[in-house]
Amino acid sequence: MQIKEIGEEGIIKAIKNINQAEASQVLIGIGDDAAVVRPEAGMLCLYACHMLVENSHFLLSKSTPFQIGYKGVSKSVADIEAMGATSRFLLVGISMSPDTPAQFIRELYEGIYAANAKGGISVIGGDISDCRGPLTISLTIIGEAAEEHLTPIDGAQEGDVLVVTGPLGAAAAGLHLLLNDITWEKYEAFREVMQQQLQPEPPWGKGQTLARSTAVTAMTDISDSLTHNLQKICKASKKGALLELKDLPVSHSARVVADKVGCNVLEWVLNGGEDFELLACVRPEKLSRVQELMKQESYNIYPIGRIIGEPGLYIKSEGEIKAVSPQGFDHFR
Amino acid sequence: MQIKEIGEEGIIKAIKNINQAEASQVLIGIGDDAAVVRPEAGMLCLYACHMLVENSHFLLSKSTPFQIGYKGVSKSVADIEAMGATSRFLLVGISMSPDTPAQFIRELYEGIYAANAKGGISVIGGDISDCRGPLTISLTIIGEAAEEHLTPIDGAQEGDVLVVTGPLGAAAAGLHLLLNDITWEKYEAFREVMQQQLQPEPPWGKGQTLARSTAVTAMTDISDSLTHNLQKICKASKKGALLELKDLPVSHSARVVADKVGCNVLEWVLNGGEDFELLACVRPEKLSRVQELMKQESYNIYPIGRIIGEPGLYIKSEGEIKAVSPQGFDHFR
Repeated sequence: MQIKEIGEEGIIKAIKNINQAEASQVLIGIGDDAAVVRPEAGMLCLYACHMLVENSHFLLSKSTPFQIGYKGVSKSVADIEAMGATSRFLLVGISMSPDTPAQFIRELYEGIYAANAKGGISVIGGDISDCRGPLTISLTIIGEAAEEHLTPIDGAQEGDVLVVTGPLGAAAAGLHLLLNDITWEKYEAFREVMQQQLQPEPPWGKGQTLARSTAVTAMTDISDSLTHNLQKICKASKKGALLELKDLPVSHSARVVADKVGCNVLEWVLNGGEDFELLACVRPEKLSRVQELMKQESYNIYPIGRIIGEPGLYIKSEGEIKAVSPQGFDHFR
Repeated sequence: MQIKEIGEEGIIKAIKNINQAEASQVLIGIGDDAAVVRPEAGMLCLYACHMLVENSHFLLSKSTPFQIGYKGVSKSVADIEAMGATSRFLLVGISMSPDTPAQFIRELYEGIYAANAKGGISVIGGDISDCRGPLTISLTIIGEAAEEHLTPIDGAQEGDVLVVTGPLGAAAAGLHLLLNDITWEKYEAFREVMQQQLQPEPPWGKGQTLARSTAVTAMTDISDSLTHNLQKICKASKKGALLELKDLPVSHSARVVADKVGCNVLEWVLNGGEDFELLACVRPEKLSRVQELMKQESYNIYPIGRIIGEPGLYIKSEGEIKAVSPQGFDHFR
């Protein structure tokens, strides 16, 4: 059945019929002119918005609707964690062809709800529209944070230790396999990088834990790429950064794939995007305390360099320091 | 200059350079991973989301970018007013071709900011993405309300007086001219209905004032159409409605246009959409008090019928009662 047969009302009904956990803060959810939420007393509200566009962010021939929905939530949660905050609610806008199968929308929402369930996030509203063109999904995520735990992008200080919250490169490795139609089911490493590309986990709780340490001066997610997002921190903070090549945590699976397909894994680590990990600047005297806190929650952090006073990005490799020109995904270039 | 020449960073910079009023509640605005807002103590947060799609919601050959932006805000504010709430913040997602002129985006934002300025609304974030297809704009509006002033869609009671907040039909008249390429600059009425279609005002303050009366049991905006949105109230409230044909407030300009082009103005009033007015259910004993309150703020209300116990929509014309089959815009039918 196509959505033109069930109409807007039918779509909303179908979406409402998929189970999601009730959130006690929600006074009015899907179905009224606007959703109504009671914010937690004394907490700040956080908002981030993502447009996910067919053929720009996903290929319908390569991703299932479930995966598209799941990954959309991961992308959104990464932004909220990057602020040291907790993800709470989601608004979902979709524009799509009237020929879209109703089952597609159902599976897309199942992916969104499956990811949401892991983080206690509720869909509280959205919009649907027809479109003669690529399927487009707009996700607006709403988070909450205590003011003292906010980790903005512009607070980096000279001497801060740069840390990332996980090994890098796997999502870019997966993208390489996907775009080059390389058969990937055979090897575990290939399956792993495809999972990282198609249905990645967001950095659940990692940003909140880092923020609670009160040792983080600046933080962002690295979904655009390590160098691109590091440059954003540096520009916003009017600082520079020196990376240590040997300290970059390379995803084991990405390394295996790079070897097999003849690619440079460091290129993926530095300039590949979509690793939904966080990049944080930590006061050096508090680094061990942060490591301790993260360990208690079963998270790792990897020191990869430090913030320097001189603007620009540099990388140290075998004693030599070279300037790095940041690369990453720009939709318009 | 096209946006592919200035890239994402250039676009964000250009947007940040257009002036908008600073909002004291905003701790972090455009440029970080997420926007951060301090909610007003004791107030509820409201959220509504709209997808505006080229060729579905607007035609680039008929609307200026300024008008598209302005109308998007009107649509968004209508939803917040329909809940009895105040509009505060906006997130703007855009997906567009890399060939889009940078000037287009600038003018779109100028339209958004011009409308925002009238209501004290700030753009606090968003997203931009490339798209090989129709320009798509996602607007998420954030409002605030006191709990006792909320006006949900499902509270209508038998005997409630149905009121609308303005004359109807002008936006549909404008759409008729626009879609039929009828020259409209010549007559004032033609210019007026085109303005209503292309750059309508939202029901600024009308919903908030109605809500403060505490006499409103249910309210919604009538952007889909009077009959369509009335049916939504009735279905949600498990009631019906009886309209009085003679009491329907017909836009003078719409009537003039209908006469000149040979259309039925009542069809536009009942089933035309995009009149950004509100439809409210008012306890009959409090109607005069509501009229008084609205008058104090220089608003009008027009009683057009009442809520009945029997489900369904009916209309009374010259003593005869007929069933009405609700029509309005469904994107997929």
